[in-house]
Amino acid sequence: MNEMNGAESLVATLAASGVELCFANPGTSEMHFVAALDRIPGVRCVLALFEGVATGAADGYWRMAGKPAATLLHLGPGLGNGWANLHNARKARSGIVNVVGDHATDHVRFESPLKSDLAGIAQSISHWVRRSQRAAEVGADGAAAVLAAHDGAVGRIATLVLPADTAWSAGGRADRAAAPAPAAGAPAATVEAAARTLASLRERSVLLIGAGGAADERAQRLAAAIAAKTGCRLLAEFYNARMPGGRGRPGIERLPYAVDPSVQKLEGAEALVLAGSVEPIGFFAYPGKPTQLKPPGAALMTLARPQDDVPRALEALAAALDVRVERDLVLHTPERVAAPSGALTPESVAMAIAATLPEQAIVIDEAVTTGRGFGRLMAAAAPHDWLQGMGGAIGYGLPCAVGAAIGAPGRPVLALEGDGSAMYTLQALWTMARESLPVVAVIFANRAYRILQGELKGVGAQVSGPKATDMLTLDRPALDWVALAQGHGVPAVRVDDAGELTRALQRGFASRMPCLIEVLL
Amino acid sequence: MNEMNGAESLVATLAASGVELCFANPGTSEMHFVAALDRIPGVRCVLALFEGVATGAADGYWRMAGKPAATLLHLGPGLGNGWANLHNARKARSGIVNVVGDHATDHVRFESPLKSDLAGIAQSISHWVRRSQRAAEVGADGAAAVLAAHDGAVGRIATLVLPADTAWSAGGRADRAAAPAPAAGAPAATVEAAARTLASLRERSVLLIGAGGAADERAQRLAAAIAAKTGCRLLAEFYNARMPGGRGRPGIERLPYAVDPSVQKLEGAEALVLAGSVEPIGFFAYPGKPTQLKPPGAALMTLARPQDDVPRALEALAAALDVRVERDLVLHTPERVAAPSGALTPESVAMAIAATLPEQAIVIDEAVTTGRGFGRLMAAAAPHDWLQGMGGAIGYGLPCAVGAAIGAPGRPVLALEGDGSAMYTLQALWTMARESLPVVAVIFANRAYRILQGELKGVGAQVSGPKATDMLTLDRPALDWVALAQGHGVPAVRVDDAGELTRALQRGFASRMPCLIEVLL
Repeated sequence: MNEMNGAESLVATLAASGVELCFANPGTSEMHFVAALDRIPGVRCVLALFEGVATGAADGYWRMAGKPAATLLHLGPGLGNGWANLHNARKARSGIVNVVGDHATDHVRFESPLKSDLAGIAQSISHWVRRSQRAAEVGADGAAAVLAAHDGAVGRIATLVLPADTAWSAGGRADRAAAPAPAAGAPAATVEAAARTLASLRERSVLLIGAGGAADERAQRLAAAIAAKTGCRLLAEFYNARMPGGRGRPGIERLPYAVDPSVQKLEGAEALVLAGSVEPIGFFAYPGKPTQLKPPGAALMTLARPQDDVPRALEALAAALDVRVERDLVLHTPERVAAPSGALTPESVAMAIAATLPEQAIVIDEAVTTGRGFGRLMAAAAPHDWLQGMGGAIGYGLPCAVGAAIGAPGRPVLALEGDGSAMYTLQALWTMARESLPVVAVIFANRAYRILQGELKGVGAQVSGPKATDMLTLDRPALDWVALAQGHGVPAVRVDDAGELTRALQRGFASRMPCLIEVLL
Repeated sequence: MNEMNGAESLVATLAASGVELCFANPGTSEMHFVAALDRIPGVRCVLALFEGVATGAADGYWRMAGKPAATLLHLGPGLGNGWANLHNARKARSGIVNVVGDHATDHVRFESPLKSDLAGIAQSISHWVRRSQRAAEVGADGAAAVLAAHDGAVGRIATLVLPADTAWSAGGRADRAAAPAPAAGAPAATVEAAARTLASLRERSVLLIGAGGAADERAQRLAAAIAAKTGCRLLAEFYNARMPGGRGRPGIERLPYAVDPSVQKLEGAEALVLAGSVEPIGFFAYPGKPTQLKPPGAALMTLARPQDDVPRALEALAAALDVRVERDLVLHTPERVAAPSGALTPESVAMAIAATLPEQAIVIDEAVTTGRGFGRLMAAAAPHDWLQGMGGAIGYGLPCAVGAAIGAPGRPVLALEGDGSAMYTLQALWTMARESLPVVAVIFANRAYRILQGELKGVGAQVSGPKATDMLTLDRPALDWVALAQGHGVPAVRVDDAGELTRALQRGFASRMPCLIEVLL
């Protein structure tokens, strides 16, 4: 082809490096990148109406596709709007390549309206930041960004700042990212020590899985077999970027969200063996409650870090303990759940979901308070993947559903949303409609920041009047989620009993198109 | 009263320092601040469903009330969601006191889900950042934050990070912010030099007003009288945080957005006298076009910086030139505009607005492409204030309308919005409904990022196919703004001719309640 400009060399580099998706909300400084999409094949661009949708979608895409997507963002404010979901992605250890346009090199010296501390905000959220200096270097910079979005088995946030003149100038040279270094297994001595610990302490030890230890079905089965053979306790971290569940899976229990039950769950443990997990820490601090959840004095042994090859480490651990999955793993297959009827309760909602969930569904869990009781019944649902918000920044769910649906084409997606959470990034509904994604979004409309009503007590704050109460309730006016969905081009229905919910879920999954169900609680 | 905790001392300090409003989107770490609102009088808290609404509202509040509001935000992600509108506020030179909750001091050492580089992101957007260390210091820190939100006649972004334990611990001591230093006038020698320049160069000089030079009606009249007497050109900056306009005002022309007409407007000028303004710079850079808009070699003379007392400086300049407003200012009062009918065109839309705008309305201009032609006809409208987005980050308009309505109680507000822009922070509609604010929101639904279709050509990018086109169009699916408004509790109507628009505006202003008008273009 003819000589490329910098933007074209970047698109060519991303395509050659396996980055096939770009979630975009572009502006003037990104116009050459946009124009390059038609001249250079290999990158599909998906438009978002708000940058938090683009970054959250890139998170969901990594979790399902296992490779980074790019985002295309407009200067400092674009990165600002994407920051919260980049935070969530960072905590999920998702790999993302942010391409952030900036003013041309000569222009950025002056105080124009969109001039901001772009370097500062990029540094505050990224593992890796680079600013391209010349069109001829954009390709190599892009290749370095893709490599930087990998860290062994997990991903990182890489941000490439692309001044407009480096995009529009001629002399672009396409490059290709080097293959990332393979994830490490566990050293033999570490495996031996972990094996001795579990075998000798038995129920006084905990095998705590996270990252690839929870996300990989083989790793889950290995961990469950090790627990069955040794008698150690087996737990997953309380939030997981991706966790296979449902019938035929081991159904590994998670650490609870609240501090007291977590401490209780770990009580009496003398050692925690970490397989892709990190030390369990309370989500928030509360007056008089511990931050570290393990018993004081309990040992922490790292079998494998999140970025390591956790399934391989667990395989080595199983071998050292003479564990054989086929022999030692006993799966308890729960009865299928019958479709419920009658009033909407946490139990009947969970039953409706468990009864209707299609095979290989991807469930995005941002149900917050409403969703805490779902775990037990979901073990009886069809095999599925369960994705959780990892960084505590609400508004991850609907965008993550967009990215997950695109990252795992053909698989149905169920997004479980609190009404307060869903409002942060409701613009994701429009991208679902635009891309005809098979996402069923369920909004639990309790018309309150219900979690905060609990947290207020948890931190010991005394509510003495209407002003504080007013900050935690969303019923004045009530949000109409059917109208909000239709406004974004997504058909919607409101349900107020469990039978209606069941039928709405069935219809939604059967349509293989986006729809929204408002559940009045 | 009983001994206060840190949060209570902060609320008491804000109230004592004149900060009466708090735009809030709180989380667990802010619960003690929320609880304190009922125990300590003097601060009104307004809830937003997204932090960008809170920060944009604080911007609009400062512009109308002339004093800072507080925002209440939840850790790094809350500040991230508010970043873009803090950027806009910073460029508008609005004063804001951000209160950002953080994990307790003992907790923040650990890698919990919401742990982030809060210091980094706070630094990237704030003029002033402090992290409270102990409950006993929170009051003094709050007082310092309020003082830091002032810089002479303009405001700054002050961010106070409040670890949860400094909020909940006893020992709080209320404080009160010191009075900010008064804004400086212009030194006599500077005034003399500016007077000589304008008097001698006449039409080869430009008096460029900005900040308080544009926002203050007296300053506008002084500037217009100076131009009438000396023959100098008079221009306002192309974006202004607040600019009185309409009948009985001088109707000062603004520099155009586009580079070529701006350069043309300044052609032949040998000196620019800056009265609250700064050197005019292009919004973006374009290949082959200048960044600095003034003629090469033209002198820049600063009569008054934005933070100075610009009206006083213009008064001194008028005195040095023997200008008397009563004698030298001739106002051309344009004919009133008749209500239009027929097709919706930029002209008929502007006529409908000019014909129906109530006295003392506040107009929030985020109409982007649609709104560029409104200027001329608005000179014939009733006297009003015109507020523009200052930082180029779209999504400022609806939140700014919330804050402006609260900052100037009783005044009607008209928000002019592009459909692309309004989608960034549409959650502001809910706060309008909740607070019964008299805001008429007009959405210009061209179903495209129309500005980008122009910018694409402006930067010389070659569009060769459907992928680029797809990134700039919003019609698949079409957004239904009537449904979106109703979903947020705001009544709405769709219009497709100028007569309907006129009647909808009349009904909306008469209702003195929020409503939305979708204008199909």
